[in-house]
Amino acid sequence: MHILITGAAGMIGRKLTARLVVDRGLNGEPIEKLTLLDVVAPERPASFSDRTKARTGDLTDPGVAAKAVSERPAAIFHLAGVVSGEAELDFEKGYRVNLDGTRALLEAIRNVGDGYRPRVVFTSSIAVFGAPFPHATPDDFHLTPLTSYGAQKAMCEAMLSDYTRKGFVEGVGIRLPTVAVRPGKPNRAASGFFSGIVREPLNGEEAVLPVAETVVHTHASPRTAVNFLIHAAGLPRDMIEPRINLSMPGVCCTVAEQIAALRRVAGDKVAARIRREPDELVARIVAGWPQRFDPQRALALGFRAESTFDEIVRVHIEDDRGGSFVG
Amino acid sequence: MHILITGAAGMIGRKLTARLVVDRGLNGEPIEKLTLLDVVAPERPASFSDRTKARTGDLTDPGVAAKAVSERPAAIFHLAGVVSGEAELDFEKGYRVNLDGTRALLEAIRNVGDGYRPRVVFTSSIAVFGAPFPHATPDDFHLTPLTSYGAQKAMCEAMLSDYTRKGFVEGVGIRLPTVAVRPGKPNRAASGFFSGIVREPLNGEEAVLPVAETVVHTHASPRTAVNFLIHAAGLPRDMIEPRINLSMPGVCCTVAEQIAALRRVAGDKVAARIRREPDELVARIVAGWPQRFDPQRALALGFRAESTFDEIVRVHIEDDRGGSFVG
Repeated sequence: MHILITGAAGMIGRKLTARLVVDRGLNGEPIEKLTLLDVVAPERPASFSDRTKARTGDLTDPGVAAKAVSERPAAIFHLAGVVSGEAELDFEKGYRVNLDGTRALLEAIRNVGDGYRPRVVFTSSIAVFGAPFPHATPDDFHLTPLTSYGAQKAMCEAMLSDYTRKGFVEGVGIRLPTVAVRPGKPNRAASGFFSGIVREPLNGEEAVLPVAETVVHTHASPRTAVNFLIHAAGLPRDMIEPRINLSMPGVCCTVAEQIAALRRVAGDKVAARIRREPDELVARIVAGWPQRFDPQRALALGFRAESTFDEIVRVHIEDDRGGSFVG
Repeated sequence: MHILITGAAGMIGRKLTARLVVDRGLNGEPIEKLTLLDVVAPERPASFSDRTKARTGDLTDPGVAAKAVSERPAAIFHLAGVVSGEAELDFEKGYRVNLDGTRALLEAIRNVGDGYRPRVVFTSSIAVFGAPFPHATPDDFHLTPLTSYGAQKAMCEAMLSDYTRKGFVEGVGIRLPTVAVRPGKPNRAASGFFSGIVREPLNGEEAVLPVAETVVHTHASPRTAVNFLIHAAGLPRDMIEPRINLSMPGVCCTVAEQIAALRRVAGDKVAARIRREPDELVARIVAGWPQRFDPQRALALGFRAESTFDEIVRVHIEDDRGGSFVG
């Protein structure tokens, strides 16, 4: 089986690559080839480098999407995109990368023709929803995004669904909750602080909290996000079509509960490294996001997240800090 | 006030033009200029021809959208698009006209800059929804279109909403129920028979009914559709934003009830001119559409449709047949 990952150099892309290389297979089939695509050069996994092709390119540049699918990968994880903060600041770039990039990929697949119909797992986002919300957002709630990022994801969901219905792809859209704890440097996502307030203190550094501790939000670890993608790749079509876009489960808690979990796992000294510094723009963006989900379909389809934020903190320490932290 | 109508040569476009010329104003302001744009030459209304500019052009052709908004029309009725049957048969044309055309218009407006922020009334459709449905589709029901036309309309709704949120336009999307009775020749909309079974018999001709008489559907007359557009143009922003896309009310009835209304208004002989000839493609498309709405927001905002299908038949006889029919 040949697998293509777009946005492969991003955090989820790297973790997905590492996981696939460990698994050596997907949906019970051995992986023969891995194509990694990103605008910055993706790193080839050491133990699989002879069967991995790393490509640098933007899906909206002429020929890039066509070349990416020319060898007819059977499964495509389409992760490429700019994050919410960047899409909000650079309107044109957001539409170009998030909308036109996805469309270029889908069109390239359609133009292969000849019965080619790959499974396409698309990372959508809970940002497709917009306030006001019911207590818990049901699966059939309307999409009224309050960010350009969310609007672009909603448009891509509709397009992926239509290309699936027409038989050009076997699409599945995964609305990821906020992925926390993200390793590495902060990115420009407005949701970045949800990770920062755990990651920085565990690294002995001060973190900034730009919103009130009463903010309620839903999280899943990077390990769980990768599990979602792999699980989605294996779902039979008749279980998901035609409503292929699915809200994922996660751990719903307040920021105060996140901090309490950090304290339980890592101690008072670590949890004390959080500085409150309200940021109105971030607070406004976050206030437009859903807090709590009732993702009945995803649960029925076997998607599973962590049960507590304590687990999420531990996953970060295990997967991204080699099991230790700065106490 | 300068008004631009795209798709002005279409049925709704022509009726909207005629109505605006009769009204001589919009939102309490006199109309100084009317620009009519379509891919086929729009007809200039005789009594307003000195203040009407009729243009032939496709919004996706270079420069057409920019030229259309260069004189900064204060209100834009964006009706241009290909209908559901055509968008389903010609995938590329549907995306080009319905998605790219709308995007070209919005981008042209954004590129005018300098504080230009027109009211943009967009004709969306109930085809943004897809089965299965609850008994009545609520305003916050998710968009899961089952046609390319519906997917394109859903994408345009998200885009219009984002351009509105960013302050580039004052958008409002009007999800029209099936507009019946359409005058003139049948078009390629899968919903065409809903009009045909009234229009053809009243004209002394046989009509074909491709679906079962038990099919339930929601209708509004062309006169009412034009009322919706004009009412939408006058709604204050703070009453609709940020959820600018609205499901319209209509008359919900079965095909059998439509035929009974035709019989009541025009007699047995007219109603006998309907021939049953099941068409599987049409039946499948229609089965994916919502039947009944609970359009609470639109009703609260003052949108009003007919109360009975009898009224809809009478509106057709009055507006499109000069008050008489072939008995």
